[in-house]
Amino acid sequence: MYFAKMHGLGNDFIVINNLDGRNIDYSNLARKICDRHFGIGADGLLVVEKSKIADIKMLIFNSDGSQAEMCGNGIRCFAKYVFEKEILKKEKMIIETLAGIMVAELKINNSLVNFVKINMGKPQINNIESIFNLKVDNLNYEINLNEKKFIASTLLMGVPHTIIYTEDIKDDDILIFGPQIEKLDFYPYKTNVNFVKVISNKKIKVKTWERGAGLTLACGTGSCASVVAAYLNGLTNNLVEVELEAGSLFIEYNDDVYMEGPAEFICEGNFFE
Amino acid sequence: MYFAKMHGLGNDFIVINNLDGRNIDYSNLARKICDRHFGIGADGLLVVEKSKIADIKMLIFNSDGSQAEMCGNGIRCFAKYVFEKEILKKEKMIIETLAGIMVAELKINNSLVNFVKINMGKPQINNIESIFNLKVDNLNYEINLNEKKFIASTLLMGVPHTIIYTEDIKDDDILIFGPQIEKLDFYPYKTNVNFVKVISNKKIKVKTWERGAGLTLACGTGSCASVVAAYLNGLTNNLVEVELEAGSLFIEYNDDVYMEGPAEFICEGNFFE
Repeated sequence: MYFAKMHGLGNDFIVINNLDGRNIDYSNLARKICDRHFGIGADGLLVVEKSKIADIKMLIFNSDGSQAEMCGNGIRCFAKYVFEKEILKKEKMIIETLAGIMVAELKINNSLVNFVKINMGKPQINNIESIFNLKVDNLNYEINLNEKKFIASTLLMGVPHTIIYTEDIKDDDILIFGPQIEKLDFYPYKTNVNFVKVISNKKIKVKTWERGAGLTLACGTGSCASVVAAYLNGLTNNLVEVELEAGSLFIEYNDDVYMEGPAEFICEGNFFE
Repeated sequence: MYFAKMHGLGNDFIVINNLDGRNIDYSNLARKICDRHFGIGADGLLVVEKSKIADIKMLIFNSDGSQAEMCGNGIRCFAKYVFEKEILKKEKMIIETLAGIMVAELKINNSLVNFVKINMGKPQINNIESIFNLKVDNLNYEINLNEKKFIASTLLMGVPHTIIYTEDIKDDDILIFGPQIEKLDFYPYKTNVNFVKVISNKKIKVKTWERGAGLTLACGTGSCASVVAAYLNGLTNNLVEVELEAGSLFIEYNDDVYMEGPAEFICEGNFFE
């Protein structure tokens, strides 16, 4: 089976083209192909399919075989793949996903896709009491753990995100406080926890503790949520570079939230099933 | 750059052919290509080179860029690669490695290599006092940890191996006792720790705590050492199936130690540097 391996800021994917609708058990394939020792190895499997309602359809499967709705790092890889493989030669693509229709804008240079900008939709900041056990008059509230106090903001960016403002982001602190905050009573559905350091009014640094997954290299929705909260708190403009472990995302909050970032090919070839 | 990814019982390798002697910084390539998120991902890099003293030469680099002397799982992948890629169509190959000349015997079926048998050399059982702080009249001695007593054997199979006999091999126990035993005063150079369950006189189960690396899927030299110790203790014959996490190795102790096992292709293609 022909495959490509790609990554978006270290979040890595196997991409396969199934426009001709072969009968493939994607869940089983994802488990096999994403296994890091017995397979090629990746965080997830992206599948290119035909769409009846958009330009093209993207399916995502996690390495455990479960299907995901959407993934910001994944959709950038997907858009670069379908453009550079000449499946779809459009600089603005309408992509069907399980989370709905997504719009991708491609920044092209010499027929290569350098950056992909995705409309990530609107954040939900108000009326979140139905989802969180929080009564906050403004965006911010205080979290008191045994050892430490934090100023926090919480909003929905597709999934629940809590933003913690810190002067210094140490991995050790994230490993201690991330899982504690994730499971506070405030968050009946748990929360992703983003540790944010404001560097200037157009640059922040973010490290995300992902709900159920731990410390990640690059969380797209977490970067979006962090910029929305920082902007609403007057800490930054509405167009911000988010510095992550493996590079930067550029987030624009303009009613909708736009995320722009890189995607890279690692290798391609034949996978022996 | 053209590559293949292969594995021997889950120990995975990228293989490249450099018979034409291109100028490649292998150490740097190993770090990049073995990275599991930004590269293809593997435990190590195997390089095929010309040899002046043997049929062919194998170089191994770890994922951190350091060079390794030899690897039992790696050399089986190497032998399958050079045979099936028609680089060397010999069923008995003389392979130059940093650890010296190795002999590989290939079991062929329909032009495919099913199993590879490697002469792993001789175990060193006697006169080990110069290497270990051990005075043992016979092979066995007792290890007393706070919580538990073990019967242990220690020998050199290229590297130091301690064999612990148990009725039941639980991962939790290995994670607790493996690192404790590894660093006992007995072992100034530390030791690999093999937890062995004897199933019959021709079958044992082995899980290995590797010195500096932790619990591994399949340790070739650990399997050899375990069979030598079990045979010398009269627990097994000299030809034993060793059941590992991902399959079996067949070890024969006949003055030299022979290890036979599988190797598999996972994928092949182009790596974009």
